[in-house]
Amino acid sequence: MRKVYLDHMATTQPDERVYQAMLPFLKEYYGNALSVYDLGVTAREAIESARSKVADLINAKPQEIIFTSGGTESNNFALRGLATAYHKKGNHIIVSLVEHHSITNPARILEREGFEVTFLPVDKFGRIDLNFLERALKPETVLISIQLANPEVGTLQPIEEVVKLAEKVGALVHTDAVAALGQIEVDVEKLDVHALSLSSHQFYGPKGVGALYLRKGTRIQPLIYGGIQEGGKRGGTENVAGIVGMGEAAQLVKENLKVWKPKMQTLRDKLIKGLVERIPKIHLTGHPVERLPGHASFIVEFIEGEAMLLMLAMKGIYVSSGSTCTSKALKASPVLSSMGFPAHLIQGSIVFSLGKDTSEEDIEYVLSEMPPIIEKLREMSPFKEGWRDMEKWEETCPHH
Amino acid sequence: MRKVYLDHMATTQPDERVYQAMLPFLKEYYGNALSVYDLGVTAREAIESARSKVADLINAKPQEIIFTSGGTESNNFALRGLATAYHKKGNHIIVSLVEHHSITNPARILEREGFEVTFLPVDKFGRIDLNFLERALKPETVLISIQLANPEVGTLQPIEEVVKLAEKVGALVHTDAVAALGQIEVDVEKLDVHALSLSSHQFYGPKGVGALYLRKGTRIQPLIYGGIQEGGKRGGTENVAGIVGMGEAAQLVKENLKVWKPKMQTLRDKLIKGLVERIPKIHLTGHPVERLPGHASFIVEFIEGEAMLLMLAMKGIYVSSGSTCTSKALKASPVLSSMGFPAHLIQGSIVFSLGKDTSEEDIEYVLSEMPPIIEKLREMSPFKEGWRDMEKWEETCPHH
Repeated sequence: MRKVYLDHMATTQPDERVYQAMLPFLKEYYGNALSVYDLGVTAREAIESARSKVADLINAKPQEIIFTSGGTESNNFALRGLATAYHKKGNHIIVSLVEHHSITNPARILEREGFEVTFLPVDKFGRIDLNFLERALKPETVLISIQLANPEVGTLQPIEEVVKLAEKVGALVHTDAVAALGQIEVDVEKLDVHALSLSSHQFYGPKGVGALYLRKGTRIQPLIYGGIQEGGKRGGTENVAGIVGMGEAAQLVKENLKVWKPKMQTLRDKLIKGLVERIPKIHLTGHPVERLPGHASFIVEFIEGEAMLLMLAMKGIYVSSGSTCTSKALKASPVLSSMGFPAHLIQGSIVFSLGKDTSEEDIEYVLSEMPPIIEKLREMSPFKEGWRDMEKWEETCPHH
Repeated sequence: MRKVYLDHMATTQPDERVYQAMLPFLKEYYGNALSVYDLGVTAREAIESARSKVADLINAKPQEIIFTSGGTESNNFALRGLATAYHKKGNHIIVSLVEHHSITNPARILEREGFEVTFLPVDKFGRIDLNFLERALKPETVLISIQLANPEVGTLQPIEEVVKLAEKVGALVHTDAVAALGQIEVDVEKLDVHALSLSSHQFYGPKGVGALYLRKGTRIQPLIYGGIQEGGKRGGTENVAGIVGMGEAAQLVKENLKVWKPKMQTLRDKLIKGLVERIPKIHLTGHPVERLPGHASFIVEFIEGEAMLLMLAMKGIYVSSGSTCTSKALKASPVLSSMGFPAHLIQGSIVFSLGKDTSEEDIEYVLSEMPPIIEKLREMSPFKEGWRDMEKWEETCPHH
């Protein structure tokens, strides 16, 4: 059976080049990077070479890159570390309602600890409201954290506009670029942010490693204290193999994105057009234009997401649902909720995320396999009975 | 040239079995453990299998193991997470002066945030003073964190006694077992601690992964917030390959420690006896008996540690110095300082840490190569001029 992996927002397969680069550091070059002898020097040099490659990817300087254990740590680190380091300026933080849990959860903890947190609403496309942001800003605003792209609906945020507004009150801007890397060009000079989170496994590197870009001169309080690693900003023996893998992946993206991006975009558009033509009552979520090139997310009415995912997986098609199903209680996606979708529609959400190796055949396979699955599921749907009620609910869907 | 790696406290080489177990998860099994389809299931099952193996190693239950990015994160997590989760009981914490930076540094931050921190002194062998501990305890004591073994001097701490004292005031006990794993049996039932830190790369697993044992029923506040991973206690996409490697390493240690331990101990004793016989003015540091089986640490008088390390490395002998040399300013090891050694003696500290593959030939090689190096270094020593002054200082050495 054909295997079509269209879940690149969940994780990506490490590239063969990344894999090969890592191997020696899991075996013969096992030294601790702090050791004075050659095994230590080899590790140290490999880390610094990777640091340069990661910096290059986002047009930063190597000394502005702090390696972490992943995007989630980077986000927690940025939010708490910047808020506390600049606490004297004020105690107001702004994040959007569609940020990843690794931003909204620490924000709520900071709130409990005495910070004032404004959660920015978004429009039906998932874009933050700049007018709302402008009104929320005050002299006490220390930090604004807005993602570059949303992994669930693919929508890009106007970070450059955020930075301009932030400057008026001297607030720092952090952006979670985890979903964006490997999909679009990310340039910290152009974005002009103070901090930016990266996750290696989202762009063909290994899991368990990430980084935080921190603009030169920006202070931060460590989240993980230890030795002198990462300039004292992040303790712990370095994950040398992981860091080397991330560096290699960064270089790979830097070299190839220009080719990958238009290819993904063409295939994405073919997928969107094809599904909308073939499946009734399917709606694109997120921004129609200002979205990641490899991202196509939908709501399929009268469908329960997890069943759809499992049926597709049986055909070798691997995708995600926007709705996070924890235990048996269906919990509506906060992203789609924030965009105005009612819970019953959110249940039918599905996310296709394309990658560098996605082919035209992959998309054609999805276009031929998915419509009959949806038809079958709808026939069995418990919602079928309440079809007429659904029609009423449908009117609440912001895309109508 | 022979290569003799005797720096197992810095890091260990991943075992071939560990390496082989990891490879598929860096390549074909790249799924995100939260995904519903088979790639996700494979990752999830691999993580749970590793969790059981790590639990087995320390006689815990799988649900008591929380995977982290390493020992440093585990220590930060335990200290801050337990102190804040039990803040209502009181605001007093006790740690020893010879804890790793990943304990003493967060302890100082908690102190700044309003916690009262008692730093326990140690005797000349590096053992904590139980009488001092007993006197320091009070109803407000929330948490005591004492390492199981010290990586710099190999001394084992009387954790079971600590737990008995802690019970009197209902304080939690955390122990940093990072240096102990792979060297001695670690049994959480026997130790009766509430939390225990592990680091994979210290026992033949990969870098970038560790765990925190948290006794069932013990609350903790997360350090890294994210999704539902690790029961909501530690967010972030799991480092599947790293976790698999750690699990394999745990099983390896569990199966073989009975053989490794006496072998390391015999070789260690041969090394200690041999060096003391061959080198004048060399002194064992740490406890002579209550120490790790693979650990031999010394102070070599009239020697500067880093030069000694580099000369040994030129002969293929890889060891550590107790003194952390950051930049050009020599900074005395806080461990040896706490044990009463003056700075000029601390400069001559050296740590040999043996591992499972250390051979008799390795030890014989060190015994033949090291004495001439010391002789040569002493001839060139800048201390030579002040020899007579040194003799006076020497009297302050607690081992005399």
